[in-house]
Amino acid sequence: MADRAAIEELVRFQGERVRDLKQQKASADQIEEEVAKLLKLKAQLGPDESKQKFVLKTPKGTRDYSPRQMAVREKVFDVIIRCFKRHGAEVIDTPVFELKETLTGKYGEDSKLIYDLKDQGGELLSLRYDLTVPFARYLAMNKLTNIKRYHIAKDFDIAGQFDPMIPDAECLKIMCEILSSLQIGDFLIKVNDRRILDGMFAVCGVPDSKFRTICSSVDKLDKVSWEEVKSEMVGEKGLAPEVADRIGDYVQQHGGVSLVEQLLQDPKLSQNKQALEGLGDLKLLFEYLTLFGIDGKISFDLSLARGLDYYTGVIYEAVLLQTPAQAGEEALGVGSVAAGGRYDGLVGIFDPKGRKVPCVGLSIGVERIFSIVEQRLEASEEKVRTTETQVLVASAQKKLLEERLKLVSELWDAGIKAELLYKKNPKLLNQLQYCEEAGIPLVAIIGEQELKDGVIKLRSVASREEVDIRREDLVEEIRRRTSKLLCIC
Amino acid sequence: MADRAAIEELVRFQGERVRDLKQQKASADQIEEEVAKLLKLKAQLGPDESKQKFVLKTPKGTRDYSPRQMAVREKVFDVIIRCFKRHGAEVIDTPVFELKETLTGKYGEDSKLIYDLKDQGGELLSLRYDLTVPFARYLAMNKLTNIKRYHIAKDFDIAGQFDPMIPDAECLKIMCEILSSLQIGDFLIKVNDRRILDGMFAVCGVPDSKFRTICSSVDKLDKVSWEEVKSEMVGEKGLAPEVADRIGDYVQQHGGVSLVEQLLQDPKLSQNKQALEGLGDLKLLFEYLTLFGIDGKISFDLSLARGLDYYTGVIYEAVLLQTPAQAGEEALGVGSVAAGGRYDGLVGIFDPKGRKVPCVGLSIGVERIFSIVEQRLEASEEKVRTTETQVLVASAQKKLLEERLKLVSELWDAGIKAELLYKKNPKLLNQLQYCEEAGIPLVAIIGEQELKDGVIKLRSVASREEVDIRREDLVEEIRRRTSKLLCIC
Repeated sequence: MADRAAIEELVRFQGERVRDLKQQKASADQIEEEVAKLLKLKAQLGPDESKQKFVLKTPKGTRDYSPRQMAVREKVFDVIIRCFKRHGAEVIDTPVFELKETLTGKYGEDSKLIYDLKDQGGELLSLRYDLTVPFARYLAMNKLTNIKRYHIAKDFDIAGQFDPMIPDAECLKIMCEILSSLQIGDFLIKVNDRRILDGMFAVCGVPDSKFRTICSSVDKLDKVSWEEVKSEMVGEKGLAPEVADRIGDYVQQHGGVSLVEQLLQDPKLSQNKQALEGLGDLKLLFEYLTLFGIDGKISFDLSLARGLDYYTGVIYEAVLLQTPAQAGEEALGVGSVAAGGRYDGLVGIFDPKGRKVPCVGLSIGVERIFSIVEQRLEASEEKVRTTETQVLVASAQKKLLEERLKLVSELWDAGIKAELLYKKNPKLLNQLQYCEEAGIPLVAIIGEQELKDGVIKLRSVASREEVDIRREDLVEEIRRRTSKLLCIC
Repeated sequence: MADRAAIEELVRFQGERVRDLKQQKASADQIEEEVAKLLKLKAQLGPDESKQKFVLKTPKGTRDYSPRQMAVREKVFDVIIRCFKRHGAEVIDTPVFELKETLTGKYGEDSKLIYDLKDQGGELLSLRYDLTVPFARYLAMNKLTNIKRYHIAKDFDIAGQFDPMIPDAECLKIMCEILSSLQIGDFLIKVNDRRILDGMFAVCGVPDSKFRTICSSVDKLDKVSWEEVKSEMVGEKGLAPEVADRIGDYVQQHGGVSLVEQLLQDPKLSQNKQALEGLGDLKLLFEYLTLFGIDGKISFDLSLARGLDYYTGVIYEAVLLQTPAQAGEEALGVGSVAAGGRYDGLVGIFDPKGRKVPCVGLSIGVERIFSIVEQRLEASEEKVRTTETQVLVASAQKKLLEERLKLVSELWDAGIKAELLYKKNPKLLNQLQYCEEAGIPLVAIIGEQELKDGVIKLRSVASREEVDIRREDLVEEIRRRTSKLLCIC
């Protein structure tokens, strides 16, 4: 299996990288450049093999991750995974590359970003571009019609034939829970529906054949001005200027459920069957979001288009707001950190008999979030604990190593996170200093008197208070004290 | 950074694979074959690109991981990581390839198994072969003298100048805790010391230059008979037969601390300074192991050699015992599942000024353990839960979707793992059946009467008992009931 494992892993990060770039709305050029870097590696590294001299370093282009950096990654993943589990998701994994044909025709204009591995072997293979298409392939292959799953700590999907908008609302709830828990600042989730976009294009007079390409143009509205998007529609894509203007009137609107209701009364849009379905579902969605208490975080935004071909219904994208929005002032977007939508047709494409499995899902932009959290921590100079040790087992006098070993072993066996200094006769001051440096909240101090009395002196590092605890009560007391210290996030 | 990420990941699994094979004492041929597979991939897959026809499958040599398989992996990693954290370890990560010179000369006869990436670029690069040498390089590069860390959920090390045998004893305690928690059957940890081996070789008359190669021969004793090992020593490695016989007398012994004491009285061995130091330390180690209550799991075994060059002191290896050892019967080993030892010289090799950082560590054979756990589960037909949902929010009558959504949202916000069926009006029977299938232990049932009374009916799926709980007490009651159900392993 060396071939499988090695090739899978070759492409894993590249796939993720390209996908994250997409989520951050990087340009096609930028992404193609990333892909090209890999191919050019040999040339980049230079041919000076003979002159090589030993230097203490990691290979070019690689890095180590320190305990501090790993602690940040772990905390972010922990928040995400705990949320996915709270919502009852199973976890699956799929290979990092797929048959090229599995990926072909699923991504629209993004297809040019798919990285082919064709020259790696006889089967035509490509890097996975996201986790959604492989998930749909997995469902069709295993004839699954119902599953709620997550995938490498960032993708969550609900597959199955259900009553409208209930799973969709849960996906938005999950995005809110994760972004709130991460405490990376205020955020807003833009929501739209592919059927509303298509209906809007139809009533504005866009020819059917241009729906998808015009959709891609609209998708750029969060990065460039309407004038530039219009110029692309008219200049590059051959749309009549008056058609573009009609689109412009719609896509510059955003708001809450009242905008949905207003458009339901729109004389043109309300005549279009697709738009009407989309608007009706959005209205229902907002009802459920209100029950979930998150309607205030959601903005119906007609400019949200999401480039990918496979979406069929509701689509959404979460953006961070740079500063707490001041009254009356437009909040500044600083980029997408999560996104998703409904894709009811994708599994059917893979199923030999075309059986449909409706799906809705979301993806978290984890690399983006790691950077934000790291930057914020550096700016705040906040201390990050890199261990979880609850208590240091210490001694007040010499010759108590055996007693320390016995006690620390008792604590480990009881599931307490405990350490001791690896010295026969450490000074008490050094033991207390170690706790200060490592952020250990409690010290269990053994002394000769304590041994006689059958107690342990438990010291709080922060308050310096000490209290004698009967040895048989120590585990419970440590649990009680440290559970109070745990942050419930 | 595409180059870094992609190349790192290219080699990650291959490195792990080779290392696991080594831990399982696979032959050099077998390992080289695994490496060759990768290179031959293109040829293996065949040139029939033109005849390709779309089939619903994963690429050759790849596989999906089902929720059940992922649940097994997650449980194993969870046990290991929790134990590492209980012992106060930080986590780091290093690239999957290193400069070739970083790895050169650290592994002895295993060096031929190192997979060079030389042809990938100008820098001479190699796959990491284990996590120990990269860790030593990390310490020297960052001028760290003290750290306790783990590395991708399987490697744990303690670096620093400490009093003898205290960290070594903790490593053995950790191995015992993990193997006990995993419940993969009875196990035994063989212990020896490089200094005892070297002293033994010296007093037996092995020339200094042959210590390492004879050490490698001894290392095979758990797979082949003494006769075969002797024939390799004499035939291939040119040792005098009487020297080999003297070695044979020693390496066929194993036992507890009494064997240590017996060898401390051995007229020849006790004259050798190195052997004496090793035996003295082992005696101290056994004292600490007794305090930790794990001396019964440890066997001092003179045939344990561990092939790698970098070990300088105590070495150990855990093996599973096929059946509970019957009185007087020799327990059958079924292969190594964890191993490690002390390597006090490795960091100094990397440090420009040769500063030493003593280290001791262990590595868990996770792929081996996954297979064992999976096999055991399949044999037992035990049901594996693939979600952690604590409660299903259900309704007894129609038209209660809104109430279900409100309640499930409250539970999510309180951190309860909760689900609901995505139907407007599901039948109660279907909701109960879903719980049976998914292993959900509790059902929170809303009915019109309950709404009037301000209560929720909480049903235990196992006992079918139902009790009305005041809505404000529901979260606490669910926590109380499910904490009892949690297995503390």
